[in-house]
Amino acid sequence: MNFARIDVRQVIFDLNGATPRDYDVVLVRCLSHSRALYAVKILQEQGVRTVNSYEAIATCGDKVLTTLALIERGIPTPRTAIAFAREPALKAVEKMGYPVVLKPPIGSWGRLMSKLNDREAAEAVLEHKEALDKSQDAPFYVQEYIHKPGRDIRTLVVGGETVYAVYRSSTHWITNTARGGHTSGLPLSPEIDRLSRAAAEAVGGDIVAVDILEDADGSLLVNEVNHTPEFHGAMQATEANIAGKMVDYILKIAS
Amino acid sequence: MNFARIDVRQVIFDLNGATPRDYDVVLVRCLSHSRALYAVKILQEQGVRTVNSYEAIATCGDKVLTTLALIERGIPTPRTAIAFAREPALKAVEKMGYPVVLKPPIGSWGRLMSKLNDREAAEAVLEHKEALDKSQDAPFYVQEYIHKPGRDIRTLVVGGETVYAVYRSSTHWITNTARGGHTSGLPLSPEIDRLSRAAAEAVGGDIVAVDILEDADGSLLVNEVNHTPEFHGAMQATEANIAGKMVDYILKIAS
Amino acid sequence: MNFARIDVRQVIFDLNGATPRDYDVVLVRCLSHSRALYAVKILQEQGVRTVNSYEAIATCGDKVLTTLALIERGIPTPRTAIAFAREPALKAVEKMGYPVVLKPPIGSWGRLMSKLNDREAAEAVLEHKEALDKSQDAPFYVQEYIHKPGRDIRTLVVGGETVYAVYRSSTHWITNTARGGHTSGLPLSPEIDRLSRAAAEAVGGDIVAVDILEDADGSLLVNEVNHTPEFHGAMQATEANIAGKMVDYILKIAS
Amino acid sequence: MNFARIDVRQVIFDLNGATPRDYDVVLVRCLSHSRALYAVKILQEQGVRTVNSYEAIATCGDKVLTTLALIERGIPTPRTAIAFAREPALKAVEKMGYPVVLKPPIGSWGRLMSKLNDREAAEAVLEHKEALDKSQDAPFYVQEYIHKPGRDIRTLVVGGETVYAVYRSSTHWITNTARGGHTSGLPLSPEIDRLSRAAAEAVGGDIVAVDILEDADGSLLVNEVNHTPEFHGAMQATEANIAGKMVDYILKIAS
Repeated sequence: MNFARIDVRQVIFDLNGATPRDYDVVLVRCLSHSRALYAVKILQEQGVRTVNSYEAIATCGDKVLTTLALIERGIPTPRTAIAFAREPALKAVEKMGYPVVLKPPIGSWGRLMSKLNDREAAEAVLEHKEALDKSQDAPFYVQEYIHKPGRDIRTLVVGGETVYAVYRSSTHWITNTARGGHTSGLPLSPEIDRLSRAAAEAVGGDIVAVDILEDADGSLLVNEVNHTPEFHGAMQATEANIAGKMVDYILKIAS
Repeated sequence: MNFARIDVRQVIFDLNGATPRDYDVVLVRCLSHSRALYAVKILQEQGVRTVNSYEAIATCGDKVLTTLALIERGIPTPRTAIAFAREPALKAVEKMGYPVVLKPPIGSWGRLMSKLNDREAAEAVLEHKEALDKSQDAPFYVQEYIHKPGRDIRTLVVGGETVYAVYRSSTHWITNTARGGHTSGLPLSPEIDRLSRAAAEAVGGDIVAVDILEDADGSLLVNEVNHTPEFHGAMQATEANIAGKMVDYILKIAS
Repeated sequence: MNFARIDVRQVIFDLNGATPRDYDVVLVRCLSHSRALYAVKILQEQGVRTVNSYEAIATCGDKVLTTLALIERGIPTPRTAIAFAREPALKAVEKMGYPVVLKPPIGSWGRLMSKLNDREAAEAVLEHKEALDKSQDAPFYVQEYIHKPGRDIRTLVVGGETVYAVYRSSTHWITNTARGGHTSGLPLSPEIDRLSRAAAEAVGGDIVAVDILEDADGSLLVNEVNHTPEFHGAMQATEANIAGKMVDYILKIAS
Repeated sequence: MNFARIDVRQVIFDLNGATPRDYDVVLVRCLSHSRALYAVKILQEQGVRTVNSYEAIATCGDKVLTTLALIERGIPTPRTAIAFAREPALKAVEKMGYPVVLKPPIGSWGRLMSKLNDREAAEAVLEHKEALDKSQDAPFYVQEYIHKPGRDIRTLVVGGETVYAVYRSSTHWITNTARGGHTSGLPLSPEIDRLSRAAAEAVGGDIVAVDILEDADGSLLVNEVNHTPEFHGAMQATEANIAGKMVDYILKIAS
């Protein structure tokens, strides 16, 4: 079994060329959502199987589409409203009640995620966001703030099997590992297992990480699904052979 | 039959709300590609039929996806290469040979379309495009320049039927009506009819305009497919009852 | 006496050409700070007197330079800190204590002015501002919030004389007329007169509007000095012949 | 004699604080033009002498102001026109005749400098530049292309004395060392010496590098003056003790 590493930033994709199908499976690890989508679409046209699929990357990479996919399957997720202009976005924020979370639909590592505690914060952030997105027309994604207990739950689903569950804890409301959150192990309860697999299936993900929030009353909500999971934190905190599980799965679908 | 006009910039889309299906069909005329896609996705989740569909808008609104869809069906289209960085984009330009056309994948009215006649122009425009797209990660879309005879052909396909064909002529290589091009009638030849319907089908379009280029040897190439066709120019140049055809089609699928 | 209206967006400025001095005085009303500065610099090189001068426009158009000019003359103004990166800006905010005001150094009409009431608002707005200013390297301008009584005071100084004083009242903390503030007359007290003239002199302004804030203890602070004053609100609220005063002054320096 | 290195990105500048004058002289090496200007203005208010001065940095860091300063002193420089909108900029290009150079007024290392050889290149680059500068209102700086012999001349002036002259050669029309140009020694002719010192004086520069172009007829033109000279290339190509000359000068003005 051979493998190679492709840097899409070095490649010229000749759309009309008689492109040989050089690979059986491509594991996508692009940080850029846009590049991942285009590259996978082109590979798919050449008959290459990608992990994750175009549809899964499109859905997971955009929080609006993730939320819609979760709601469609009846999976619990925080209340969310979308608007395309500052005025209705402010109305949606006020209607939802403070605190509220504003997120860029496309983006990772908690970048530009805002917790708004009052109207003056909402006005300021919405105006900045509007100025920032002038050319991108990104919608305003307004979400209720979940009063979670200083941590969230993160699981990894590979080929329909939940591989691990960990806590990510932080004194900051953004519990992202990239922002200094701490990772610790967690026994995989049936409910977390079921929710994780349901979320992976809802977005059509082969290999995805699932973000789960615990509400004040203990109920669980799926927050996000990540199609290029990072797991250096989890490797310290669990016994699971994470990379091994991923490679085994890829070899299985390659054959 | 009732109808209403919706300005998506005024709407709060409550993703979790029990949203009643207020409309049978929605005709999408958003200028913003991003807003059109999100709004149509949300409507579709509510069971509303849209014209065009999410898939058609996604494909037509992005020139990379349009080109891939045309090539997949074997429809003749200009040679095209994609790159994600300035260096391979310059190599793709030089390999294709001057003149070459650089287009933003998403955008309309000929905006930011560049004809590059030499390497110094290519270097300058690619550097500007890179600076401009810093936050958007838009790929470089490099296409052979077709030596067309001062005009291109534009047709409208509604529900699988070609409604009209017109020439758009201009002394500028961009023959867009919005840029001052002149529109005149054209008898609908079997080849133009067949190509138009094939292009509409390739992108899954209910109501689309098809841009066709005549190469130096007279052969025809489908250039772009537009999912929110404007037709004020064509209304002067043809006898076709354009708006009527569109309304009839929408009423038909509504029932 | 002849006059003409120049739209700088229509002009080609030939820097090397033998440029005739076409005008005695030019009254600058550019909305763009950058265009005003360049145009006035070029006119000044040709020996044309401008109102305001290059130096006054440079100072008034940039809140950092205004604040420095006011402090240099000992004119009371809110406490202000500057930083060039997000981390020291956040430290400056926390050190100053909430609420705090963040302003873009260049800009008008209250655009992108933010009142930050807590650390989560500060983090969100500073991150958005950093993303927004990537290419502009605009500094973070952090200013104590003055607990003013629902209004501020605006005066106009023409050629060293205070022409009027008005209140601008609003339920919003931004009392800008362009944002719906209400304007009403105010007797010109000796202190307001003295402060207005001192501020105009500090920035070298021929015709400038002066923004004055009343602190909780009644003391007055100069907030901003505006080099292209708008006065439609003041025209309703005062008896002063505002346009006449400005024209008289311009004619006087033209002769 | 003590010294310290200041990273302005770490500093909180308290504008109102009783700021002690910590330094006698500050040598400015900021890459960001905006940060350099603000930091120097604040230092200057505190009574600190900076090299270069605020006025020199403001002039050298902006090609429009440099060109105006050179023309005012009668120093030969390429013909230049300024416009604030795409239409007059295109007219200025066509009037000047191809090839023409378009430069961002603020910027270094040859970044975004464009050589335009025909109208289609001009249209494409001007449209991209306009889109890029939407928020910055940077003017269009249009300059005649000088048919130089594959090299330009670069000199360093320290305290009114020309320290060295070198050629920078390249097969690319942009002969910047940062872009791979080659540096070689050059005897300092009286004309180059005189022109260099005149240019430094025109911009008020303590320590500046002067860019000189040789026209097809052998005449010399001052192109740019750089207020934060880099000299790693020149160190290989000349005997001059460059850093020593700079330090000596700074010590002299410090005492």
